[in-house]
Amino acid sequence: MAKQKSARLLVIGGAEDPDEDRMEILPYFVEMAGGKQARIVVCSSPSENPEEKVRVYRKLFEKIGVAEVIDAPISSRVEAADPELVAAVERATAVFFTGGDQLRLTALVAGTPFGECVRERLFHDGLVVGGTSAGAAAMSSTMVIGGPSDGTVRRQDVDLAPGLNYWSDAVVDTHFNQRGRVNRSLTIFAHNPQILGIGIDENTAVDVVPGRGFTVVGAGAVTVFDGRVSHTSAPDAADGDVLAVIDSKVHVLPAGYGLDLKTLRPTLPGGAEIAAA
Amino acid sequence: MAKQKSARLLVIGGAEDPDEDRMEILPYFVEMAGGKQARIVVCSSPSENPEEKVRVYRKLFEKIGVAEVIDAPISSRVEAADPELVAAVERATAVFFTGGDQLRLTALVAGTPFGECVRERLFHDGLVVGGTSAGAAAMSSTMVIGGPSDGTVRRQDVDLAPGLNYWSDAVVDTHFNQRGRVNRSLTIFAHNPQILGIGIDENTAVDVVPGRGFTVVGAGAVTVFDGRVSHTSAPDAADGDVLAVIDSKVHVLPAGYGLDLKTLRPTLPGGAEIAAA
Repeated sequence: MAKQKSARLLVIGGAEDPDEDRMEILPYFVEMAGGKQARIVVCSSPSENPEEKVRVYRKLFEKIGVAEVIDAPISSRVEAADPELVAAVERATAVFFTGGDQLRLTALVAGTPFGECVRERLFHDGLVVGGTSAGAAAMSSTMVIGGPSDGTVRRQDVDLAPGLNYWSDAVVDTHFNQRGRVNRSLTIFAHNPQILGIGIDENTAVDVVPGRGFTVVGAGAVTVFDGRVSHTSAPDAADGDVLAVIDSKVHVLPAGYGLDLKTLRPTLPGGAEIAAA
Repeated sequence: MAKQKSARLLVIGGAEDPDEDRMEILPYFVEMAGGKQARIVVCSSPSENPEEKVRVYRKLFEKIGVAEVIDAPISSRVEAADPELVAAVERATAVFFTGGDQLRLTALVAGTPFGECVRERLFHDGLVVGGTSAGAAAMSSTMVIGGPSDGTVRRQDVDLAPGLNYWSDAVVDTHFNQRGRVNRSLTIFAHNPQILGIGIDENTAVDVVPGRGFTVVGAGAVTVFDGRVSHTSAPDAADGDVLAVIDSKVHVLPAGYGLDLKTLRPTLPGGAEIAAA
Protein backbone atom coordinates (compact mmCIF):
# COMPACT_ATOMS: atom_id res chain seq x y z
CA MET A 1 0.00 0.00 0.00
CA ALA A 2 1.30 3.47 -0.88
CA LYS A 3 1.60 5.75 2.12
CA GLN A 4 -0.40 9.00 1.94
CA LYS A 5 2.17 11.80 1.88
CA SER A 6 2.23 15.40 0.71
CA ALA A 7 3.76 15.94 -2.71
CA ARG A 8 6.97 17.99 -2.71
CA LEU A 9 8.47 19.83 -5.67
CA LEU A 10 11.57 21.92 -6.29
CA VAL A 11 10.80 24.31 -9.14
CA ILE A 12 13.99 25.98 -10.39
CA GLY A 13 14.24 29.15 -12.51
CA GLY A 14 17.15 27.90 -14.64
CA ALA A 15 20.49 29.53 -15.19
CA GLU A 16 22.52 30.64 -18.16
CA ASP A 17 25.64 29.60 -16.33
CA PRO A 18 24.39 26.32 -14.90
CA ASP A 19 27.29 26.02 -12.48
CA GLU A 20 26.00 28.93 -10.44
CA ASP A 21 22.67 27.46 -9.42
CA ARG A 22 24.07 24.02 -8.90
CA MET A 23 26.22 25.26 -6.06
CA GLU A 24 23.20 26.17 -3.96
CA ILE A 25 20.09 24.74 -5.58
CA LEU A 26 21.17 21.22 -6.57
CA PRO A 27 22.64 20.37 -3.14
CA TYR A 28 19.32 21.58 -1.67
CA PHE A 29 17.50 19.21 -4.05
CA VAL A 30 19.75 16.32 -3.03
CA GLU A 31 18.96 17.09 0.62
CA MET A 32 15.22 16.97 -0.17
CA ALA A 33 15.80 13.63 -1.95
CA GLY A 34 17.47 12.00 1.06
CA GLY A 35 21.05 13.31 1.00
CA LYS A 36 23.62 10.53 0.71
CA GLN A 37 20.74 8.01 0.49
CA ALA A 38 19.20 9.83 -2.51
CA ARG A 39 18.37 7.78 -5.62
CA ILE A 40 17.69 10.31 -8.38
CA VAL A 41 16.19 9.62 -11.82
CA VAL A 42 17.42 12.27 -14.27
CA CYS A 43 14.88 12.74 -17.08
CA SER A 44 16.36 14.80 -19.90
CA SER A 45 13.41 14.50 -22.28
CA PRO A 46 13.07 18.28 -22.70
CA SER A 47 16.56 18.39 -24.24
CA GLU A 48 17.44 17.82 -27.87
CA ASN A 49 20.60 16.09 -26.68
CA PRO A 50 19.13 13.95 -23.89
CA GLU A 51 22.16 11.61 -23.61
CA GLU A 52 24.57 14.47 -23.14
CA LYS A 53 22.30 16.34 -20.71
CA VAL A 54 21.83 13.27 -18.53
CA ARG A 55 25.62 12.84 -18.30
CA VAL A 56 26.04 16.44 -17.10
CA TYR A 57 23.57 15.95 -14.25
CA ARG A 58 24.90 12.47 -13.39
CA LYS A 59 28.31 14.07 -12.78
CA LEU A 60 26.88 16.90 -10.73
CA PHE A 61 24.74 14.67 -8.50
CA GLU A 62 27.63 12.24 -8.02
CA LYS A 63 29.88 15.14 -7.06
CA ILE A 64 27.38 16.35 -4.44
CA GLY A 65 27.17 12.75 -3.22
CA VAL A 66 24.12 10.50 -3.67
CA ALA A 67 23.47 6.72 -3.49
CA GLU A 68 22.40 6.33 -7.13
CA VAL A 69 21.78 8.30 -10.32
CA ILE A 70 19.44 6.66 -12.83
CA ASP A 71 19.63 7.87 -16.44
CA ALA A 72 16.33 8.55 -18.17
CA PRO A 73 17.19 10.21 -21.49
CA ILE A 74 13.72 9.33 -22.78
CA SER A 75 13.30 10.38 -26.39
CA SER A 76 10.24 8.36 -27.41
CA ARG A 77 6.97 7.29 -25.77
CA VAL A 78 8.05 3.67 -26.28
CA GLU A 79 11.09 4.26 -24.05
CA ALA A 80 8.76 5.87 -21.51
CA ALA A 81 6.94 2.53 -21.25
CA ASP A 82 10.12 0.52 -20.52
CA PRO A 83 9.37 -1.65 -17.43
CA GLU A 84 12.99 -1.36 -16.25
CA LEU A 85 12.69 2.42 -16.20
CA VAL A 86 9.39 2.24 -14.34
CA ALA A 87 11.03 -0.11 -11.80
CA ALA A 88 13.82 2.47 -11.40
CA VAL A 89 11.25 5.15 -10.62
CA GLU A 90 9.71 2.75 -8.07
CA ARG A 91 12.97 2.57 -6.12
CA ALA A 92 13.97 6.24 -6.60
CA THR A 93 13.64 8.93 -3.94
CA ALA A 94 13.48 11.73 -6.53
CA VAL A 95 13.06 12.58 -10.21
CA PHE A 96 14.78 15.57 -11.83
CA PHE A 97 13.62 17.11 -15.12
CA THR A 98 16.26 19.07 -17.06
CA GLY A 99 15.85 22.15 -19.24
CA GLY A 100 15.08 22.23 -22.95
CA ASP A 101 11.60 22.43 -24.45
CA GLN A 102 8.59 21.92 -22.18
CA LEU A 103 6.40 20.71 -25.06
CA ARG A 104 8.94 17.94 -25.80
CA LEU A 105 8.69 16.89 -22.16
CA THR A 106 4.89 16.69 -22.00
CA ALA A 107 4.68 15.08 -25.45
CA LEU A 108 7.17 12.36 -24.49
CA VAL A 109 6.18 11.68 -20.88
CA ALA A 110 2.60 12.73 -20.02
CA GLY A 111 0.33 9.69 -19.69
CA THR A 112 3.08 7.08 -20.24
CA PRO A 113 3.83 4.36 -17.64
CA PHE A 114 6.94 6.41 -16.63
CA GLY A 115 4.89 9.60 -16.32
CA GLU A 116 2.06 7.88 -14.43
CA CYS A 117 4.49 6.25 -12.01
CA VAL A 118 6.16 9.62 -11.24
CA ARG A 119 2.78 11.23 -10.70
CA GLU A 120 1.43 8.40 -8.51
CA ARG A 121 4.52 8.27 -6.28
CA LEU A 122 4.73 12.10 -6.10
CA PHE A 123 1.24 12.41 -4.67
CA HIS A 124 1.05 9.20 -2.64
CA ASP A 125 4.50 7.91 -1.85
CA GLY A 126 6.91 10.73 -0.95
CA LEU A 127 8.74 10.93 -4.28
CA VAL A 128 10.39 14.34 -4.63
CA VAL A 129 10.21 15.96 -8.09
CA GLY A 130 12.56 18.73 -9.23
CA GLY A 131 12.90 20.54 -12.52
CA THR A 132 14.77 23.48 -14.00
CA SER A 133 13.78 25.85 -16.79
CA ALA A 134 11.56 23.81 -19.18
CA GLY A 135 11.46 21.07 -16.53
CA ALA A 136 10.09 23.67 -14.11
CA ALA A 137 7.64 25.30 -16.51
CA ALA A 138 6.08 21.91 -17.28
CA MET A 139 5.10 21.27 -13.64
CA SER A 140 2.16 23.64 -13.61
CA SER A 141 -1.33 22.82 -14.85
CA THR A 142 -0.97 25.31 -17.66
CA MET A 143 2.43 26.08 -19.06
CA VAL A 144 3.74 29.00 -21.09
CA ILE A 145 5.22 27.74 -24.34
CA GLY A 146 5.92 31.04 -25.99
CA GLY A 147 5.36 34.74 -26.01
CA PRO A 148 7.53 37.80 -26.34
CA SER A 149 9.79 38.77 -23.46
CA ASP A 150 9.81 42.38 -24.48
CA GLY A 151 7.47 44.75 -26.16
CA THR A 152 3.84 45.36 -25.38
CA VAL A 153 2.03 42.03 -24.98
CA ARG A 154 -1.16 41.63 -26.94
CA ARG A 155 -3.84 39.02 -26.58
CA GLN A 156 -2.47 36.91 -29.43
CA ASP A 157 1.07 36.87 -28.11
CA VAL A 158 1.05 34.34 -25.30
CA ASP A 159 0.91 30.65 -26.11
CA LEU A 160 -0.17 28.21 -23.42
CA ALA A 161 -0.42 24.44 -23.28
CA PRO A 162 -1.43 21.91 -20.63
CA GLY A 163 1.47 21.00 -18.33
CA LEU A 164 2.14 17.91 -16.18
CA ASN A 165 -0.21 19.39 -13.55
CA TYR A 166 1.91 18.56 -10.51
CA TRP A 167 1.09 22.07 -9.33
CA SER A 168 -2.42 23.16 -10.25
CA ASP A 169 -3.77 26.71 -10.44
CA ALA A 170 -0.29 28.10 -11.08
CA VAL A 171 1.64 29.13 -14.15
CA VAL A 172 5.40 28.97 -13.70
CA ASP A 173 7.67 31.18 -15.77
CA THR A 174 11.43 30.78 -15.46
CA HIS A 175 14.49 33.01 -16.19
CA PHE A 176 12.02 35.62 -14.99
CA ASN A 177 13.86 38.87 -14.33
CA GLN A 178 16.68 37.80 -16.62
CA ARG A 179 14.33 37.75 -19.59
CA GLY A 180 11.89 40.50 -18.61
CA ARG A 181 8.81 38.29 -18.68
CA VAL A 182 6.47 40.21 -16.42
CA ASN A 183 4.04 41.39 -19.02
CA ARG A 184 3.37 37.96 -20.42
CA SER A 185 2.41 36.82 -16.94
CA LEU A 186 -0.02 39.68 -16.59
CA THR A 187 -1.59 38.77 -19.92
CA ILE A 188 -2.15 35.22 -18.72
CA PHE A 189 -4.06 36.42 -15.69
CA ALA A 190 -6.22 38.64 -17.76
CA HIS A 191 -7.55 35.41 -19.25
CA ASN A 192 -7.80 33.44 -16.05
CA PRO A 193 -7.68 35.48 -12.87
CA GLN A 194 -7.78 32.46 -10.56
CA ILE A 195 -4.36 31.30 -11.75
CA LEU A 196 -1.34 32.30 -9.70
CA GLY A 197 1.65 33.52 -11.73
CA ILE A 198 5.02 32.43 -10.38
CA GLY A 199 8.07 34.07 -11.98
CA ILE A 200 11.29 32.43 -10.84
CA ASP A 201 14.68 34.09 -11.34
CA GLU A 202 17.76 32.15 -12.40
CA ASN A 203 19.72 30.50 -9.59
CA THR A 204 16.52 30.54 -7.56
CA ALA A 205 13.86 27.93 -6.76
CA VAL A 206 10.63 27.37 -4.88
CA ASP A 207 10.30 24.41 -2.54
CA VAL A 208 6.59 23.64 -2.96
CA VAL A 209 4.08 21.49 -1.15
CA PRO A 210 1.21 21.80 -3.68
CA GLY A 211 -2.02 22.97 -2.07
CA ARG A 212 -0.16 24.03 1.04
CA GLY A 213 2.68 26.51 0.41
CA PHE A 214 6.15 27.25 -0.84
CA THR A 215 9.44 28.76 0.33
CA VAL A 216 12.03 30.55 -1.81
CA VAL A 217 15.57 29.17 -2.03
CA GLY A 218 18.59 30.70 -3.78
CA ALA A 219 20.18 33.93 -4.88
CA GLY A 220 17.41 35.75 -6.73
CA ALA A 221 13.74 36.59 -6.27
CA VAL A 222 10.42 34.93 -6.97
CA THR A 223 7.76 37.29 -8.27
CA VAL A 224 4.20 36.23 -7.46
CA PHE A 225 1.22 37.66 -9.33
CA ASP A 226 -2.11 37.14 -7.67
CA GLY A 227 -4.44 37.44 -10.60
CA ARG A 228 -7.76 37.73 -8.83
CA VAL A 229 -8.24 41.05 -10.60
CA SER A 230 -11.32 43.15 -10.24
CA HIS A 231 -11.41 44.05 -13.90
CA THR A 232 -9.94 42.94 -17.19
CA SER A 233 -10.80 43.76 -20.77
CA ALA A 234 -9.98 40.19 -21.88
CA PRO A 235 -13.54 38.93 -22.44
CA ASP A 236 -14.19 41.51 -25.13
CA ALA A 237 -10.67 41.96 -26.51
CA ALA A 238 -9.58 41.25 -30.07
CA ASP A 239 -6.35 39.36 -30.75
CA GLY A 240 -4.35 42.49 -31.46
CA ASP A 241 -5.57 44.40 -28.40
CA VAL A 242 -3.45 45.31 -25.41
CA LEU A 243 -5.29 43.84 -22.41
CA ALA A 244 -6.26 45.92 -19.40
CA VAL A 245 -5.51 44.30 -16.04
CA ILE A 246 -6.67 46.11 -12.90
CA ASP A 247 -5.77 45.36 -9.26
CA SER A 248 -3.40 42.47 -9.78
CA LYS A 249 -1.27 42.01 -6.65
CA VAL A 250 2.48 41.52 -6.87
CA HIS A 251 4.87 40.15 -4.29
CA VAL A 252 8.64 39.99 -4.76
CA LEU A 253 9.99 37.27 -2.49
CA PRO A 254 13.69 36.71 -1.77
CA ALA A 255 15.13 33.59 -0.10
CA GLY A 256 13.32 32.50 3.06
CA TYR A 257 10.08 34.26 2.17
CA GLY A 258 7.20 32.15 0.93
CA LEU A 259 3.52 31.93 0.09
CA ASP A 260 0.68 30.12 1.82
CA LEU A 261 -1.15 28.50 -1.09
CA LYS A 262 -4.42 28.23 0.84
CA THR A 263 -4.72 31.86 1.94
CA LEU A 264 -2.48 33.20 -0.89
CA ARG A 265 -0.74 35.36 1.73
CA PRO A 266 3.07 35.76 1.68
CA THR A 267 5.07 34.49 4.63
CA LEU A 268 8.19 35.83 6.35
CA PRO A 269 11.39 33.83 6.80
CA GLY A 270 10.39 31.46 9.61
CA GLY A 271 6.89 31.00 8.23
CA ALA A 272 4.76 33.74 9.86
CA GLU A 273 2.05 35.00 7.55
CA ILE A 274 2.21 38.68 6.53
CA ALA A 275 -1.16 40.29 7.21
CA ALA A 276 -2.86 42.20 4.41
CA ALA A 277 -2.72 46.00 4.72
CA MET B 1 -1.78 88.56 -14.36
CA ALA B 2 -1.29 84.83 -14.96
CA LYS B 3 -4.56 82.91 -15.13
CA GLN B 4 -4.93 80.05 -12.64
CA LYS B 5 -5.11 76.86 -14.72
CA SER B 6 -4.41 73.15 -14.20
CA ALA B 7 -1.01 71.97 -15.40
CA ARG B 8 -1.13 69.53 -18.31
CA LEU B 9 1.64 67.15 -19.34
CA LEU B 10 2.12 64.59 -22.09
CA VAL B 11 4.59 62.00 -20.82
CA ILE B 12 5.77 59.76 -23.68
CA GLY B 13 7.47 56.36 -23.36
CA GLY B 14 9.88 56.92 -26.25
CA ALA B 15 10.41 54.78 -29.32
CA GLU B 16 13.33 53.09 -30.97
CA ASP B 17 11.80 53.92 -34.32
CA PRO B 18 10.75 57.48 -33.65
CA ASP B 19 8.53 57.68 -36.70
CA GLU B 20 6.08 55.24 -35.20
CA ASP B 21 5.10 57.25 -32.15
CA ARG B 22 5.07 60.50 -34.02
CA MET B 23 2.21 59.34 -36.18
CA GLU B 24 -0.14 59.09 -33.20
CA ILE B 25 1.48 60.73 -30.20
CA LEU B 26 2.97 63.91 -31.67
CA PRO B 27 -0.25 64.95 -33.46
CA TYR B 28 -2.02 64.41 -30.11
CA PHE B 29 0.55 66.70 -28.47
CA VAL B 30 0.03 69.35 -31.16
CA GLU B 31 -3.71 69.15 -30.51
CA MET B 32 -3.10 69.70 -26.77
CA ALA B 33 -0.87 72.66 -27.68
CA GLY B 34 -3.55 74.40 -29.73
CA GLY B 35 -3.48 72.60 -33.09
CA LYS B 36 -2.70 74.93 -35.99
CA GLN B 37 -2.31 77.80 -33.49
CA ALA B 38 0.35 75.87 -31.49
CA ARG B 39 3.66 77.62 -30.76
CA ILE B 40 6.02 74.89 -29.55
CA VAL B 41 9.44 75.36 -27.92
CA VAL B 42 11.58 72.27 -28.61
CA CYS B 43 14.15 71.83 -25.85
CA SER B 44 16.77 69.24 -26.85
CA SER B 45 19.02 69.66 -23.80
CA PRO B 46 18.92 65.92 -22.94
CA SER B 47 20.61 65.15 -26.28
CA GLU B 48 24.33 65.16 -26.96
CA ASN B 49 23.55 66.56 -30.39
CA PRO B 50 20.97 69.19 -29.44
CA GLU B 51 21.17 71.12 -32.73
CA GLU B 52 20.46 68.04 -34.79
CA LYS B 53 17.69 66.82 -32.47
CA VAL B 54 15.90 70.15 -32.55
CA ARG B 55 15.92 70.07 -36.36
CA VAL B 56 14.28 66.63 -36.40
CA TYR B 57 11.38 67.79 -34.21
CA ARG B 58 11.05 71.13 -36.03
CA LYS B 59 10.43 69.17 -39.24
CA LEU B 60 7.94 66.83 -37.60
CA PHE B 61 5.92 69.58 -35.94
CA GLU B 62 5.92 71.64 -39.14
CA LYS B 63 4.69 68.60 -41.06
CA ILE B 64 1.82 68.08 -38.61
CA GLY B 65 1.09 71.80 -38.94
CA VAL B 66 1.66 74.38 -36.19
CA ALA B 67 1.95 78.19 -36.06
CA GLU B 68 5.54 78.29 -34.81
CA VAL B 69 8.41 76.04 -33.73
CA ILE B 70 10.99 77.67 -31.45
CA ASP B 71 14.42 76.02 -31.25
CA ALA B 72 15.86 75.60 -27.75
CA PRO B 73 19.00 73.45 -28.18
CA ILE B 74 20.18 74.64 -24.77
CA SER B 75 23.60 73.22 -23.97
CA SER B 76 24.73 75.54 -21.15
CA ARG B 77 23.09 77.24 -18.18
CA VAL B 78 24.13 80.58 -19.69
CA GLU B 79 22.00 79.84 -22.77
CA ALA B 80 19.14 78.89 -20.42
CA ALA B 81 19.24 82.47 -19.09
CA ASP B 82 18.94 84.10 -22.55
CA PRO B 83 16.14 86.72 -22.29
CA GLU B 84 15.11 86.06 -25.91
CA LEU B 85 14.54 82.39 -25.13
CA VAL B 86 12.55 83.27 -22.02
CA ALA B 87 10.44 85.65 -24.12
CA ALA B 88 9.84 82.76 -26.56
CA VAL B 89 8.57 80.59 -23.71
CA GLU B 90 6.30 83.47 -22.67
CA ARG B 91 4.57 83.45 -26.05
CA ALA B 92 4.61 79.64 -26.52
CA THR B 93 1.60 77.36 -26.03
CA ALA B 94 3.80 74.30 -25.31
CA VAL B 95 7.31 73.08 -24.53
CA PHE B 96 8.59 69.70 -25.74
CA PHE B 97 11.60 67.95 -24.15
CA THR B 98 13.39 65.41 -26.37
CA GLY B 99 15.13 62.16 -25.41
CA GLY B 100 18.75 61.75 -24.38
CA ASP B 101 20.03 61.85 -20.81
CA GLN B 102 17.71 63.07 -18.07
CA LEU B 103 20.60 64.22 -15.87
CA ARG B 104 21.81 66.49 -18.68
CA LEU B 105 18.33 68.01 -18.83
CA THR B 106 18.02 68.75 -15.11
CA ALA B 107 21.63 69.93 -14.88
CA LEU B 108 21.17 72.39 -17.77
CA VAL B 109 17.64 73.61 -17.14
CA ALA B 110 16.46 73.22 -13.52
CA GLY B 111 16.41 76.55 -11.69
CA THR B 112 17.43 78.64 -14.73
CA PRO B 113 15.28 81.54 -16.03
CA PHE B 114 14.15 79.20 -18.87
CA GLY B 115 13.32 76.39 -16.42
CA GLU B 116 11.53 78.73 -14.01
CA CYS B 117 9.48 80.29 -16.79
CA VAL B 118 8.35 76.84 -18.05
CA ARG B 119 7.45 75.79 -14.52
CA GLU B 120 5.58 79.03 -13.72
CA ARG B 121 3.56 78.98 -16.95
CA LEU B 122 2.88 75.21 -16.66
CA PHE B 123 1.25 75.59 -13.26
CA HIS B 124 -0.36 79.02 -13.65
CA ASP B 125 -0.79 79.92 -17.27
CA GLY B 126 -1.93 76.92 -19.32
CA LEU B 127 1.45 76.04 -20.90
CA VAL B 128 1.42 72.40 -22.05
CA VAL B 129 4.62 70.42 -21.42
CA GLY B 130 5.50 67.22 -23.30
CA GLY B 131 8.54 64.98 -23.15
CA THR B 132 9.69 61.67 -24.51
CA SER B 133 12.11 59.12 -23.05
CA ALA B 134 14.64 61.14 -20.96
CA GLY B 135 12.38 64.17 -21.38
CA ALA B 136 9.55 62.11 -19.85
CA ALA B 137 11.59 60.55 -17.05
CA ALA B 138 12.73 64.01 -15.91
CA MET B 139 9.15 65.20 -15.29
CA SER B 140 8.68 63.30 -12.06
CA SER B 141 9.84 64.46 -8.63
CA THR B 142 12.32 61.60 -8.46
CA MET B 143 13.77 60.18 -11.65
CA VAL B 144 15.47 56.89 -12.43
CA ILE B 145 18.93 57.53 -13.83
CA GLY B 146 20.17 53.98 -13.97
CA GLY B 147 19.67 50.43 -12.95
CA PRO B 148 19.69 47.09 -14.67
CA SER B 149 16.82 46.17 -16.96
CA ASP B 150 17.35 42.49 -16.47
CA GLY B 151 18.61 40.25 -13.74
CA THR B 152 17.56 40.21 -10.12
CA VAL B 153 17.49 43.78 -8.80
CA ARG B 154 19.34 44.36 -5.55
CA ARG B 155 19.18 47.36 -3.25
CA GLN B 156 22.35 48.88 -4.67
CA ASP B 157 21.24 48.61 -8.27
CA VAL B 158 18.80 51.48 -8.78
CA ASP B 159 20.08 55.05 -9.06
CA LEU B 160 17.67 57.91 -8.51
CA ALA B 161 18.03 61.69 -8.75
CA PRO B 162 15.69 64.66 -8.26
CA GLY B 163 13.67 65.43 -11.40
CA LEU B 164 11.98 68.61 -12.63
CA ASN B 165 9.04 67.83 -10.30
CA TYR B 166 6.26 68.71 -12.70
CA TRP B 167 4.58 65.51 -11.50
CA SER B 168 5.19 64.81 -7.82
CA ASP B 169 4.83 61.48 -6.01
CA ALA B 170 5.47 59.55 -9.22
CA VAL B 171 8.47 57.90 -10.79
CA VAL B 172 8.24 57.60 -14.56
CA ASP B 173 10.10 54.85 -16.38
CA THR B 174 10.05 54.77 -20.18
CA HIS B 175 10.65 52.08 -22.85
CA PHE B 176 8.96 50.01 -20.17
CA ASN B 177 7.99 46.64 -21.60
CA GLN B 178 10.55 47.01 -24.38
CA ARG B 179 13.37 47.01 -21.85
CA GLY B 180 11.92 44.78 -19.13
CA ARG B 181 12.12 47.37 -16.38
CA VAL B 182 9.49 46.09 -13.97
CA ASN B 183 11.79 44.93 -11.24
CA ARG B 184 13.59 48.21 -10.92
CA SER B 185 10.24 49.90 -10.37
CA LEU B 186 9.40 47.44 -7.63
CA THR B 187 12.74 48.13 -5.97
CA ILE B 188 11.99 51.86 -5.95
CA PHE B 189 8.72 51.32 -4.10
CA ALA B 190 10.38 49.17 -1.54
CA HIS B 191 12.22 52.33 -0.54
CA ASN B 192 9.32 54.70 -0.74
CA PRO B 193 5.89 53.09 -0.83
CA GLN B 194 4.03 56.38 -1.29
CA ILE B 195 5.53 56.90 -4.73
CA LEU B 196 3.52 55.76 -7.73
CA GLY B 197 5.50 53.90 -10.40
CA ILE B 198 4.48 54.67 -13.97
CA GLY B 199 5.99 52.43 -16.67
CA ILE B 200 5.24 53.74 -20.14
CA ASP B 201 5.69 51.59 -23.25
CA GLU B 202 7.16 52.92 -26.45
CA ASN B 203 4.69 54.63 -28.82
CA THR B 204 2.51 55.28 -25.79
CA ALA B 205 1.93 58.30 -23.54
CA VAL B 206 -0.03 59.53 -20.55
CA ASP B 207 -1.97 62.78 -20.77
CA VAL B 208 -1.65 64.02 -17.18
CA VAL B 209 -3.27 66.70 -15.08
CA PRO B 210 -0.95 66.46 -12.05
CA GLY B 211 -2.84 65.96 -8.80
CA ARG B 212 -5.99 65.06 -10.71
CA GLY B 213 -5.55 62.14 -13.14
CA PHE B 214 -4.23 60.80 -16.39
CA THR B 215 -5.43 59.00 -19.54
CA VAL B 216 -3.42 56.61 -21.71
CA VAL B 217 -2.83 57.43 -25.38
CA GLY B 218 -1.15 55.30 -28.06
CA ALA B 219 -0.41 51.77 -29.14
CA GLY B 220 1.06 50.13 -26.02
CA ALA B 221 0.30 49.89 -22.33
CA VAL B 222 1.03 51.88 -19.22
CA THR B 223 1.88 49.77 -16.19
CA VAL B 224 1.05 51.40 -12.86
CA PHE B 225 2.54 50.18 -9.59
CA ASP B 226 0.82 51.37 -6.48
CA GLY B 227 3.58 51.03 -3.95
CA ARG B 228 1.62 51.38 -0.74
CA VAL B 229 2.89 47.96 0.27
CA SER B 230 2.11 46.38 3.56
CA HIS B 231 5.59 45.00 4.02
CA THR B 232 9.07 45.46 2.64
CA SER B 233 12.46 44.32 3.85
CA ALA B 234 14.07 47.58 2.65
CA PRO B 235 14.63 49.24 6.07
CA ASP B 236 16.91 46.43 7.22
CA ALA B 237 18.38 45.34 3.89
CA ALA B 238 22.06 45.46 2.95
CA ASP B 239 23.14 46.82 -0.43
CA GLY B 240 23.51 43.38 -1.98
CA ASP B 241 20.18 42.03 -0.72
CA VAL B 242 17.20 41.21 -2.91
CA LEU B 243 14.34 43.29 -1.49
CA ALA B 244 11.04 41.77 -0.47
CA VAL B 245 7.97 43.69 -1.65
CA ILE B 246 4.56 42.48 -0.50
CA ASP B 247 1.11 43.56 -1.72
CA SER B 248 2.13 46.02 -4.38
CA LYS B 249 -0.79 46.59 -6.75
CA VAL B 250 -0.34 46.53 -10.52
CA HIS B 251 -2.58 47.85 -13.24
CA VAL B 252 -1.91 47.43 -16.96
CA LEU B 253 -3.73 50.20 -18.79
CA PRO B 254 -4.18 50.35 -22.58
CA ALA B 255 -5.34 53.41 -24.52
CA GLY B 256 -8.42 55.12 -23.08
CA TYR B 257 -7.94 53.73 -19.57
CA GLY B 258 -6.58 56.04 -16.92
CA LEU B 259 -5.90 56.68 -13.26
CA ASP B 260 -7.53 59.06 -10.80
CA LEU B 261 -4.52 60.55 -9.02
CA LYS B 262 -6.56 61.50 -5.93
CA THR B 263 -8.14 58.10 -5.25
CA LEU B 264 -5.40 56.13 -7.09
CA ARG B 265 -8.19 54.09 -8.74
CA PRO B 266 -8.01 53.17 -12.43
CA THR B 267 -10.65 54.50 -14.78
CA LEU B 268 -12.39 52.97 -17.79
CA PRO B 269 -12.42 54.55 -21.25
CA GLY B 270 -14.92 57.38 -20.77
CA GLY B 271 -13.66 58.13 -17.27
CA ALA B 272 -15.75 55.95 -14.91
CA GLU B 273 -13.77 54.80 -11.89
CA ILE B 274 -13.24 51.05 -11.52
CA ALA B 275 -14.30 50.03 -8.01
CA ALA B 276 -11.85 48.02 -5.91
CA ALA B 277 -12.68 44.31 -5.56
